[in-house]
Parts: sequence; structure tokens; C-alpha cells
Amino acid sequence: MRILGIDPGLAIAGYAIINYEENSMVLETSGSIQTDKTSAVSDRLLEIFEDLSKIIECYHPDCASIEKLYFFKNQKTIIPVGEARGVILAVLAKYGIEIYEYTPIEVKQVLTGYGRADKKEVEQMVKYALNCNILPKLDDTIDAIAIAICHARNIH
Amino acid sequence: MRILGIDPGLAIAGYAIINYEENSMVLETSGSIQTDKTSAVSDRLLEIFEDLSKIIECYHPDCASIEKLYFFKNQKTIIPVGEARGVILAVLAKYGIEIYEYTPIEVKQVLTGYGRADKKEVEQMVKYALNCNILPKLDDTIDAIAIAICHARNIH
Repeated sequence: MRILGIDPGLAIAGYAIINYEENSMVLETSGSIQTDKTSAVSDRLLEIFEDLSKIIECYHPDCASIEKLYFFKNQKTIIPVGEARGVILAVLAKYGIEIYEYTPIEVKQVLTGYGRADKKEVEQMVKYALNCNILPKLDDTIDAIAIAICHARNIH
Repeated sequence: MRILGIDPGLAIAGYAIINYEENSMVLETSGSIQTDKTSAVSDRLLEIFEDLSKIIECYHPDCASIEKLYFFKNQKTIIPVGEARGVILAVLAKYGIEIYEYTPIEVKQVLTGYGRADKKEVEQMVKYALNCNILPKLDDTIDAIAIAICHARNIH
């Protein structure tokens, strides 16, 4: 099963594709869609729509695992993150991809066994799950990988 | 100039097309995109994307006037309205339509001269601007008409 993990955002949306089979989890690709802060919000949202479409057409994921937005997470960014997330959900629906949603606490709980684990603990468990020593630099990309792993573990 | 007014929402997004020329304002069409509450949010967002695309392809608006979302308006609906608004902005960018944004207070101020005018006062001024006695039943549609008129008045 090929899982597309997404950490939604307007400036940076992290993504990751994980190939998951029984007892095997391989990171096929990961990266981020970054939009220019000096461009109009509408153009940046269209860029997310088009870039995510290309990623899906290239990797054909079976399902998507995406961070659930909840009201009290970060009040300053809730509008732009919500707008970006709306576009991402519409793209996933366009390609008929099943969507699973997890809160950051659920992701931490599934990966580390503890819902309030810190960033380093999550990174450690991502490395362990993928059997690798090096992770991408960008937090948003690591978060997307973690969300994909969370779904793989959840359906295990 | 043909102005597309939009009142964004996930369950109901109101829209209106106004033809505006010097000393003349005509409502060409108005209505709402309504999505089924029992469907997945992602499918409802895709429906908004596709329906709004059809409206734009049919009426070819020159610009769009859309309600600006701000944080303290309605905390319960900010996430679904933000997600729907993100999709709407992406569609407008896809068709290269110039976007103008107004808060509800600005719309009331421009239409009635008073930012805290009530619904009936706004409706009265919409009727006056369009020189008509009957308005659509749905508040979301009337709000979309009001937002379109607001932009016409603003560029006058």
C-alpha cells in the first residue's frame, strides 16, 4: 500500500510517499510544496492545487494521511492553514483518494506511545520505523513522513 | 464590468453576477452552491471547486468580490468556511480573475453608510441599488449580491 502523508500549510506543505507492506516500510519520496510569500494567496493556493496534482499523478498513492486541523492549535495561522487544507482535500477528492485524518497528538501517540512526545523523540521513531539515520531537514517534511507512518501503524 | 460576488461557505456558498456600468447596475444571475452535509468534506470541497468553475465558464466575470474571513467572526465555523474559501480562491486564480476582499462591516458601511446596519437595512439598500422589489430567499445569496454591489460602489 502506498500512503501519501501530508502536513498542510500555505507557505510550506510537507508531503511524503511511503510504501507499506507487512513488516516493511520504505520511504519512496518526500519533500515540500513551498509558495512565495510575496504572491497573492489565491495564486499560492492554486500552486498547491497544481503541485499536489502532479505528485499524485506521479506516485499514484492508494490513500492519504493528513493532519487534522483543530481550533485551538494555532489561532494566528488557522485561516491560511485551513484554506490550504481545503485545497488539498479537494485535490485528494478529485483523484478519488481515500483520506484518513490524525491530530498531532494521535501521530505522536502512535509513533512514540506518548501523545506529548517532543520533536526529537518523534524524529527518533521516524528513523527507527524507516530504518535510516538521516531525515530531511525541513520539519514540515518530517511531519508528513510521521503522519504517513502513523496511518501505516494504525492499519497494521 | 461583470462582478462575481461570493459569500463563502462549505454547506452553502452564495454567488451573484452583477453587470455594472456607469449609473447602471443589473443583477444577471444569483444562486447558491449547496453541498450535502452527509458527504465527506473533501467531496463537498471538490463540488464547490467544480460548480464554481462552471459558473465562471458560463458568465465570464471580469473580477470577483468575496467576503474576507477574520478570526473572531465565528469560531465554530472558521475551519470549514476557511477550507471552502481556500478552494474558491484557487478556482478564481485558475481562471485569472482579479480578487477583491471585503469584511462584512465594510460591505454594510459601503451599502448603508453604517458598518453595524442590520440585515433588513442591507436588504433594503440591495433592492434600491438593483431597482427591484424582490430578492432571493437565501441569506447567503443576498450576501453575495451585497458583496458584488459593495465592489461596484467602491470602484465608482
